[in-house]
Amino acid sequence: MTAGVVVRFLKLTVAYDGTAYAGWQQQRRRRSVQQQLQEAWERITGEPARMAASSRTDAGVHALGQVVSCESRTALAPHVLQRALNARLPEDIRVHEVAEAPTGFHATRAAVGKRYRYLIQDGGTPDLFLRDYCWYLPRELDVAAMQQAARTLVGQHDFASFQNAGSPRTSTVRNLRELTVARRRDERADRVVIEAEGDGFLYNMVRNLVGTLVEVGQGRRDARWPAQVLAARRRSLAGRTAPPHGLFLVSVACDR
Amino acid sequence: MTAGVVVRFLKLTVAYDGTAYAGWQQQRRRRSVQQQLQEAWERITGEPARMAASSRTDAGVHALGQVVSCESRTALAPHVLQRALNARLPEDIRVHEVAEAPTGFHATRAAVGKRYRYLIQDGGTPDLFLRDYCWYLPRELDVAAMQQAARTLVGQHDFASFQNAGSPRTSTVRNLRELTVARRRDERADRVVIEAEGDGFLYNMVRNLVGTLVEVGQGRRDARWPAQVLAARRRSLAGRTAPPHGLFLVSVACDR
Repeated sequence: MTAGVVVRFLKLTVAYDGTAYAGWQQQRRRRSVQQQLQEAWERITGEPARMAASSRTDAGVHALGQVVSCESRTALAPHVLQRALNARLPEDIRVHEVAEAPTGFHATRAAVGKRYRYLIQDGGTPDLFLRDYCWYLPRELDVAAMQQAARTLVGQHDFASFQNAGSPRTSTVRNLRELTVARRRDERADRVVIEAEGDGFLYNMVRNLVGTLVEVGQGRRDARWPAQVLAARRRSLAGRTAPPHGLFLVSVACDR
Repeated sequence: MTAGVVVRFLKLTVAYDGTAYAGWQQQRRRRSVQQQLQEAWERITGEPARMAASSRTDAGVHALGQVVSCESRTALAPHVLQRALNARLPEDIRVHEVAEAPTGFHATRAAVGKRYRYLIQDGGTPDLFLRDYCWYLPRELDVAAMQQAARTLVGQHDFASFQNAGSPRTSTVRNLRELTVARRRDERADRVVIEAEGDGFLYNMVRNLVGTLVEVGQGRRDARWPAQVLAARRRSLAGRTAPPHGLFLVSVACDR
């Protein structure tokens, strides 16, 4: 297709169902979201693509609004690129927007805020329509206790206790601006929704926060325990890592 | 397993994701929900099973509360049967309840009321998490016009215009007790939800009602047109049959 000479920086907003993928990141011999997007881009523009995402979601984790950056010399208009990508991508990956971004835009570095959501069904027969989108726990959780515990974790803290090994960072201090727990009832099932918003998250931090809050909700620990875990800065003290399929990357705020 | 001598009649309430099935009914060389349930039953009880359902859902149609009847000599308690079935069934079929039913109970004949729901996404980028559970239409529907049209179809009428060939019935008169159209907005997408409740439905009747209301919602026909189609009693006049994957059998009322 048409190839211009000017390098453009593009920002893609992408949703995907993580069920069939080994996560965002390209890996040898495994299907990844990055690989699907890059292959589609290459077929459309005829140029190799190297994309970066704001969040390196793990296998099974979903995204409603992942932000992806791509450098390109294509002359195609953003809406043409969006349509062409959606025509070539599998149905479980959708590009919601393609927009021009400032020179040098890089989705990982530009991210200044991320919002995640975690879905739990507690009790009843597992809702089969949510089998890939929700952590099923057989007994009802004590949401009030979880809310009380969640409030003690909000703010700027060293979250080392909630980081899994695998992605060393220079600092483990993050500003967790919001951590809410709410019950949502509908005719089909009771669900508990946990939302986390902050300037950044350590590796598996949301799933470790959820696993820790669930121990409180199950009555195994009291509502003051998560604050003690936080203060100790030792991963071994926190609850289990909640399974990936209940986690959604909701949105990313970029600094420009 | 234990086999008693007394014949019991059991009523199963079953949910399923119809995406992977050729519908409820057993068919040669195609996976059906009936086949999955009967095979699981036979492995648990050691006896052949012949099940009947209240609604013969088509390929791709889902159920939240299908009612299934089964005659059996098993001595296993209902809750044991439920647990054993769910342990053996694929994840996209769940038995929500097993209960004793009166002698002679037959799910098809006992059904005196059925409720269906149909989901549409109108406009925006298709919600990929609903790709198997919702009819996607690219433009916004006129819900007020659809509501106006729906009201003219409620009541006891000859619905011959809304029946597809394939399942001849002695009478095409049915009592449509409720037909509602509502818009539901959430952060992800706009959806239109159509609910139909009545004493019984002809073959493809719900999907034909939906297809006809959509023609009104798209402005191709005015809100008085569906009543004219109804009065004409000719299938060729109605709108297209809406695709199966937006349809859910919500619940069934049995006369005992």
